[in-house]
Amino acid sequence: MDVVEVVPTFEQYAFTFGGVAPLRRVTPGTALRLWSDDAFCGALQKTTDLSSEKVDLRFVNPQTGPFHVEGAEPGDTLALHFVAMEPARDWGASAAIPFFGGLTSTDRTATLQDPLPDTTWIYELDRAANTVTFAAQHTDLQIALPVEPMLGTVGVAPPGGEVRSSLVPERFGGNMDTPQMRPGATCFLGVNVEGALFSVGDGHYRQGEGEACGTAVEGAMTTTLIVELVKGGAPLWPRLEDDTHWMTVGSSRPLEDAWRIGQVELVRWFGELYGLHPMDAYQLLSQISEVPIANVVDANYSAVVKARKSLLPRATAYGGLHDDLRRRAATLL
Amino acid sequence: MDVVEVVPTFEQYAFTFGGVAPLRRVTPGTALRLWSDDAFCGALQKTTDLSSEKVDLRFVNPQTGPFHVEGAEPGDTLALHFVAMEPARDWGASAAIPFFGGLTSTDRTATLQDPLPDTTWIYELDRAANTVTFAAQHTDLQIALPVEPMLGTVGVAPPGGEVRSSLVPERFGGNMDTPQMRPGATCFLGVNVEGALFSVGDGHYRQGEGEACGTAVEGAMTTTLIVELVKGGAPLWPRLEDDTHWMTVGSSRPLEDAWRIGQVELVRWFGELYGLHPMDAYQLLSQISEVPIANVVDANYSAVVKARKSLLPRATAYGGLHDDLRRRAATLL
Amino acid sequence: MDVVEVVPTFEQYAFTFGGVAPLRRVTPGTALRLWSDDAFCGALQKTTDLSSEKVDLRFVNPQTGPFHVEGAEPGDTLALHFVAMEPARDWGASAAIPFFGGLTSTDRTATLQDPLPDTTWIYELDRAANTVTFAAQHTDLQIALPVEPMLGTVGVAPPGGEVRSSLVPERFGGNMDTPQMRPGATCFLGVNVEGALFSVGDGHYRQGEGEACGTAVEGAMTTTLIVELVKGGAPLWPRLEDDTHWMTVGSSRPLEDAWRIGQVELVRWFGELYGLHPMDAYQLLSQISEVPIANVVDANYSAVVKARKSLLPRATAYGGLHDDLRRRAATLL
Amino acid sequence: MDVVEVVPTFEQYAFTFGGVAPLRRVTPGTALRLWSDDAFCGALQKTTDLSSEKVDLRFVNPQTGPFHVEGAEPGDTLALHFVAMEPARDWGASAAIPFFGGLTSTDRTATLQDPLPDTTWIYELDRAANTVTFAAQHTDLQIALPVEPMLGTVGVAPPGGEVRSSLVPERFGGNMDTPQMRPGATCFLGVNVEGALFSVGDGHYRQGEGEACGTAVEGAMTTTLIVELVKGGAPLWPRLEDDTHWMTVGSSRPLEDAWRIGQVELVRWFGELYGLHPMDAYQLLSQISEVPIANVVDANYSAVVKARKSLLPRATAYGGLHDDLRRRAATLL
Repeated sequence: MDVVEVVPTFEQYAFTFGGVAPLRRVTPGTALRLWSDDAFCGALQKTTDLSSEKVDLRFVNPQTGPFHVEGAEPGDTLALHFVAMEPARDWGASAAIPFFGGLTSTDRTATLQDPLPDTTWIYELDRAANTVTFAAQHTDLQIALPVEPMLGTVGVAPPGGEVRSSLVPERFGGNMDTPQMRPGATCFLGVNVEGALFSVGDGHYRQGEGEACGTAVEGAMTTTLIVELVKGGAPLWPRLEDDTHWMTVGSSRPLEDAWRIGQVELVRWFGELYGLHPMDAYQLLSQISEVPIANVVDANYSAVVKARKSLLPRATAYGGLHDDLRRRAATLL
Repeated sequence: MDVVEVVPTFEQYAFTFGGVAPLRRVTPGTALRLWSDDAFCGALQKTTDLSSEKVDLRFVNPQTGPFHVEGAEPGDTLALHFVAMEPARDWGASAAIPFFGGLTSTDRTATLQDPLPDTTWIYELDRAANTVTFAAQHTDLQIALPVEPMLGTVGVAPPGGEVRSSLVPERFGGNMDTPQMRPGATCFLGVNVEGALFSVGDGHYRQGEGEACGTAVEGAMTTTLIVELVKGGAPLWPRLEDDTHWMTVGSSRPLEDAWRIGQVELVRWFGELYGLHPMDAYQLLSQISEVPIANVVDANYSAVVKARKSLLPRATAYGGLHDDLRRRAATLL
Repeated sequence: MDVVEVVPTFEQYAFTFGGVAPLRRVTPGTALRLWSDDAFCGALQKTTDLSSEKVDLRFVNPQTGPFHVEGAEPGDTLALHFVAMEPARDWGASAAIPFFGGLTSTDRTATLQDPLPDTTWIYELDRAANTVTFAAQHTDLQIALPVEPMLGTVGVAPPGGEVRSSLVPERFGGNMDTPQMRPGATCFLGVNVEGALFSVGDGHYRQGEGEACGTAVEGAMTTTLIVELVKGGAPLWPRLEDDTHWMTVGSSRPLEDAWRIGQVELVRWFGELYGLHPMDAYQLLSQISEVPIANVVDANYSAVVKARKSLLPRATAYGGLHDDLRRRAATLL
Repeated sequence: MDVVEVVPTFEQYAFTFGGVAPLRRVTPGTALRLWSDDAFCGALQKTTDLSSEKVDLRFVNPQTGPFHVEGAEPGDTLALHFVAMEPARDWGASAAIPFFGGLTSTDRTATLQDPLPDTTWIYELDRAANTVTFAAQHTDLQIALPVEPMLGTVGVAPPGGEVRSSLVPERFGGNMDTPQMRPGATCFLGVNVEGALFSVGDGHYRQGEGEACGTAVEGAMTTTLIVELVKGGAPLWPRLEDDTHWMTVGSSRPLEDAWRIGQVELVRWFGELYGLHPMDAYQLLSQISEVPIANVVDANYSAVVKARKSLLPRATAYGGLHDDLRRRAATLL
């Protein structure tokens, strides 16, 4: 199986979902190896690089893509299977951007208070140990944390001719910022426009659930993924499958609505997987759901709703595509 | 170590936090073995028992307690260590109560729609297998699920002379409905009134995060716990510690505020545990927090914010009380 | 018609709805002339009196009452008609209390930011001109504003044995903080406990909708009201009637739920008033509702939903009680 | 003063803000007389026309425009003064669209309940009486209501290359659905792209605050407006001025954030108008703001925050542009 390598130039970065000409056309079944820049376009390299000085907020979350998937039509299901994610730099950066984040007022939760101090943290990567190191700014504490790479942003072009910033998580995926978007997972997205026009970006060397301060350990990433297409069957909201869980992602505000969306989507999926009536799926999921918050900082908040496969009878989605992709992925590693 | 057994009569059930005379006085260090009725006071015993007919919503979440803890004064910290929780009946019940739950309109999220069908599910307990069985009402699917006992409700009397329904999660604990409230965990609550006046109830044989339909596998429970008291040091919001995690629980509406509360409380706790400046704790927790939603159905919604101890330098809270209680608990089993 | 005068001592102030013995028993039809202290118990008298130093937040919104209404039983409707409200001091006070208010983070919308500067404004009352004067603290601007007296807090004891702080607006009324609670209005509240146990307080010499900074022009008030009782017919949420409008008040979080509650309650009332099917009432109100926000700062937020009588066919509520009370009130002035 | 008449063909309708080529170029100072179709593109003409059958939800809120304003650059302020709005058909339509509206679950506030019955109401226009008539569907009640024409949608192209549906209210204006957008008002919008690219649509013959069921008395409209441009001075969020009030419009979710945005924007404007420090503006507005909810049904909710000019010292905004436009408008009538 061949792997197509793509390293965009800065001029090729996309900053929206929709509204951008395809970077490349790919056929279903293609494996891609994609380099993506970090959320700050690499502007934060040391702790004295402050976001208010170095980061142009119009140009954040650069996307690698969009890719036009041959044959994809509205109503189809795009499947992206993540084979591997490797840090592409030796450091990651995180920042408390003024009036951005979960424990500060923002342009939406607007108050008259002063912002928190604009602060940047740099996480050195130790490839041998596979860790990034948190270094406190106000004391001497340093803590090496395992690298757990993930992508903040995976999405397709929106419907209705909309064009959305790459900071937005929505029905079309986008900036969901969930640690579940990691190697071994398959992401299913409904196709809204011909060619699907998907892109990825916003690599995180690790991220806590909620992404409290608004930024993870942001880092350039090399992502290997396999593109597949299922004709029809578009889910209303993003679905994820890995070897252990069925998952959905809801994104809205307030956060309970993000949860409602994800929970209803999983009720719907359980109807497909197990033939369950909505009331029975509602009941069963009430007793087995795992609900890790994804982000409480983006334009919409995101919640993941998960069900552990080992608790459930065997079932397959999309014709067993995830398992098939796992097998194909194994040939790439 | 002696264990004091308490099995309340129906007349002794408490349905509020505060406003009730103590059921009993206990000294710090006491181990209690408490029987608690299920959330429905046992009214749902078969699938034809509908909540709208059998459940008096003024008498739900019966509490066992309150217990007056000798020496507890406002500003102190009550520690409750859960040694064991054992199903006290051979079945649990769950229900979709009209206009109650997460995927329905409610008295607050008021709409003009009809309610979902009033439905009851009964989960038979298999003590040998340690499972409860979900049985679909509309199809034949049955699934045996592991028993993972927890308490929905653990709380003390509120401050300011308030008396709150046992359906309410708040700063004083209460109906937080988190699966983290399980054997092996220590719950720290700020004391608001002399004697603390804590109670427990709302046993769940298992519950998914979010408690989507509003009710878990509700079951009578026998809970063994050890009561301890720390003078001073009252946390602003409930804290939990187990062998693997530091945890806080925030409860409010909308759900993002519950999360904010929990996240800020953990920032505060990390200041105590590691001497971290709030900005550094904010940053560190942004990369390591786990945020399982507790409930999106109660009078307030609850979010848990957790940090895994194994990622962090060794630290102890409240003079190492949790470890000490674990040792004491071992002598009881 | 006699008027019963009540001026409570400080020791007689109530700080909760429920949980307090009646100050006095009254029979339906009684006119009361009630003195109430301001929200700060008079602690802010000059701009150098800062709330963080002078105000004990456990003792705010002192209530005059509660009054036990003879014959009132759960399910009945208490009607309070406001005849007159007169400033009882020559100044009002307002304050930006740290971490309280609408344009600051709070204990619920918790952030890591510093509070806004603790600031007090004093409004001198000009009785002849019937104005209070805003005086800017940072510039020389002074503006005389009309006195438009209202009560922030009107409520009865809650159901279910709950006791709630006088800072809380809820189904039982309470701290709704709406400028509609003014002379000429009749407030209808469902009775939850024998005797209803109503109280009033939190006088405002004037208040903007939203009560943005968390405090109005807070002032001691002398309120003349007539107490009436309707057997049965308890509304689910507070209703208001004046000569021009039908009104309901919803209180919850987030603010859209407060609105939903009020809008549904008015749909329900329109069913009673005009025999309208809920879908028709929903439609009609969609075209005529006025929705002034009451507060976005209290433990629950409050929204008022109004319908202008002059747009509608003539109808009467509660047997024409409001008109009758207006006539009786005229004999008192 | 000449008036340029524009009546678009169906093919010329725009359904987004941004992403559409200008319909026409206009110079500042131009008066336009614009025909706009109703929100349903005229598809609902009788009560048996149900929205689920007749309305293609991809083509709602058709816009007349966009207009490229000569000389408008990002950072400038576009002023649109509404001279007149005249119903362009003899009937208006309103509908309870399944899963759309304020008193139903939606795609965001997702529940498992059935939708409300899909229902259409037709309002006959009486030009002589200047009324539209509500006709109940389930009873015989008919009520003639005054025509109070307004535009639901007034907006410019968004920043950052985004393209948004004409159903969205945001920083760029859009589907704010406030009855304040009526003849006599001047709307100030920040320009985000060269030419501003404004459009208008979604005429309402009348609308209640909140637009509870999701649709007003929707009607084709002929709107006369004057376009002006102020170099620089772009407000962060939409501002409105009429002869009696200063107003701002915030749009977000939850509703309290929409309010916060509007209230902060008015604090900011009061700094410009009266030289007030933010804390003083916060205080003054706490006592005088009027806060009519605009909509609780759109992609974002909208709140209007108003201050009555007659309470305040005389001040002018944008060089007295509103007064000047009023004078110019008078020459057109």
